Amino acid sequence: MQEQLIDKVMEEIKRRMETAQTKAAAGSEQAACISPTPGITEFVGTAMGDTIGLVIANVDPILHEKMKLDPRFRSIGILGGRTGAGPHIMAADEAVKATNTEIVAIELARDTKGGAGHGCLILFGAEEVSDARRAIEVALKELNRTFGDVYANDAGHIELQYTARASYAINKAFGAPLGKAFGIVVGAPAAIGVLMADTAVKTANVEVVTYASPAGGTSFTNEVIITITGDSGAVRQAVIAAREVGRKLLETMAGPAPSLTTPYI
Amino acid sequence: MQEQLIDKVMEEIKRRMETAQTKAAAGSEQAACISPTPGITEFVGTAMGDTIGLVIANVDPILHEKMKLDPRFRSIGILGGRTGAGPHIMAADEAVKATNTEIVAIELARDTKGGAGHGCLILFGAEEVSDARRAIEVALKELNRTFGDVYANDAGHIELQYTARASYAINKAFGAPLGKAFGIVVGAPAAIGVLMADTAVKTANVEVVTYASPAGGTSFTNEVIITITGDSGAVRQAVIAAREVGRKLLETMAGPAPSLTTPYI
Amino acid sequence: MQEQLIDKVMEEIKRRMETAQTKAAAGSEQAACISPTPGITEFVGTAMGDTIGLVIANVDPILHEKMKLDPRFRSIGILGGRTGAGPHIMAADEAVKATNTEIVAIELARDTKGGAGHGCLILFGAEEVSDARRAIEVALKELNRTFGDVYANDAGHIELQYTARASYAINKAFGAPLGKAFGIVVGAPAAIGVLMADTAVKTANVEVVTYASPAGGTSFTNEVIITITGDSGAVRQAVIAAREVGRKLLETMAGPAPSLTTPYI
Repeated sequence: MQEQLIDKVMEEIKRRMETAQTKAAAGSEQAACISPTPGITEFVGTAMGDTIGLVIANVDPILHEKMKLDPRFRSIGILGGRTGAGPHIMAADEAVKATNTEIVAIELARDTKGGAGHGCLILFGAEEVSDARRAIEVALKELNRTFGDVYANDAGHIELQYTARASYAINKAFGAPLGKAFGIVVGAPAAIGVLMADTAVKTANVEVVTYASPAGGTSFTNEVIITITGDSGAVRQAVIAAREVGRKLLETMAGPAPSLTTPYI
Repeated sequence: MQEQLIDKVMEEIKRRMETAQTKAAAGSEQAACISPTPGITEFVGTAMGDTIGLVIANVDPILHEKMKLDPRFRSIGILGGRTGAGPHIMAADEAVKATNTEIVAIELARDTKGGAGHGCLILFGAEEVSDARRAIEVALKELNRTFGDVYANDAGHIELQYTARASYAINKAFGAPLGKAFGIVVGAPAAIGVLMADTAVKTANVEVVTYASPAGGTSFTNEVIITITGDSGAVRQAVIAAREVGRKLLETMAGPAPSLTTPYI
Repeated sequence: MQEQLIDKVMEEIKRRMETAQTKAAAGSEQAACISPTPGITEFVGTAMGDTIGLVIANVDPILHEKMKLDPRFRSIGILGGRTGAGPHIMAADEAVKATNTEIVAIELARDTKGGAGHGCLILFGAEEVSDARRAIEVALKELNRTFGDVYANDAGHIELQYTARASYAINKAFGAPLGKAFGIVVGAPAAIGVLMADTAVKTANVEVVTYASPAGGTSFTNEVIITITGDSGAVRQAVIAAREVGRKLLETMAGPAPSLTTPYI
């Protein structure tokens, strides 16, 4: 009888913990959407990946010079996160398409909160702060989509990105041609990325824009990253083939590697 | 009635877990102060941030050369930690003020145990090992204070440092003028650091010594770091203003970001 | 009486949690040995340290060029892990000794899943894929041994490696002379590594091949790493002496630092 009571208590504890976790998760999701404003006019919003968006209407002239910003831009938009660089670059690319801003800096940190990849800092330049603010708003909203083809588990992550028409953020970050289809293929640990890269370029007739690995082109992350351009159908096909092989390998290492949000490619 | 019993059990479990955690925390604090010596003469002590202090009376000549140490110094003091570089540099600065030693190397690792910042390795040179030992002792003791204006939560951290009179460690690390007031402003993720930097330089009439970001001046950490010099009142005011804005942003991202010890600025 | 019941429930909870953990640990160990194949012909196997081994029979010519591979090798073997670089280099060294392959790249990421050290990507070149596959198989099997003198706890880790006869992987990674005894001494945080290095070179008549620290020779890891060569008895003695001092310091910082597998030196 005592056995039964203990079992019941254990079950109850398990149930309550799960409820608490679900509540916490839901709460944090909600927090990401409607985070309380800190009462700072420069604050725009937050998004997943520990991302924050800010604007400065008039950058202090001394700092402006130290940051080597283009003198044309008094205002800047600031987009930065702990996890993700690809999602942020893709989101920034949509933001420059939609607003009167330019990308003035894309910097990749060795971060991802202790994972194998990058965090980032992206700066938009604008003549008017309203433009900078609009760019950050667009980018923050895009992030939920651009995290869609990031798949992760305890062993690492893979990331895929695709756009039918690359704009200035992609051009700034990778030197990819403007207006053409563009894709990113990332595998971590880097070993997986090598095979994903090989799969991508063998699948369809695409051009390799960049190849990056731990010792070159990354900030020492444990990733192999290729970026590709070409015909939109070919780029998409290459990215999807790389995703299949990368996800299988990652799941062989450490079990299910679900999408962080919802796949978009 | 069984419901009530389960509730009671849950409460009791919660209470016991909290007690256990409090005890563990207290224990670890105590451990940091009175750690058992490993029976190695070179061992000086440990401090927070997974910091260890060591001395070598006579560095092996082969190693001495490989480490490119100044031939004047037979003895070295070694201060290194997993979390923190600013706190260690400030502590080292007090140590050189107080002892007959020089700073021979300050190296910043991309560490912080998986957080967004730096770990460090600082070497003191001395002609006598007693001087090296004294320097390490002073530095270890200072760390509790210099971690005081580090505020952290799950999204990142901010760090502020201030001294009315910079000495050789600060000069070595940042090229800041000797004998003048000096401050450090750090924000992670880097996006927060940009706004903190802007706030600092707008608040008071200070001079920017260095500006560092993920792609330049850091070891690829997800931080923006500015160092400032000038009138002591102005530097202090700038640092405090940056702290206010940085802490608000960090807390908007992920809730309370308390000081790691006790604020000193 | 209720007190007693609560005590019993607490005990039962503790017991069940421990059983669950033991089962999980055992399961993960087994998973590392008999991981399900992902149904990809390029997959060879996995090993500890989140290591994966892969082969590509014919690297795509475009990718081949972007990766700057030697044109002689159509096939490559890929060995990569999240934790460890030393163990992988030593394992690769055995693999090149045993097979008709060459090491074409050794890249060190700033990884270790958020710890203080490196992850890695090692590429073997081969004319036949069967040779590449054999090399990866040998390396994967060696890893269990080469992780044997890695000791870790919450404060950091130390790592020792020793071979009586260095081969091409070691030569490629460190420039150490072929056919001679060779050892690696690693301490993290870096402060510990300095004292281990000093101890090693003072213990026996060895030659220092390389000295690496956070700011030079590492990928910004919080490690000091020396590699040594010389008489096999001397190298072994130096490595063992460094291990003693390093382990004592690490354990002073954060308690027991057991071997990750079984010490082999």
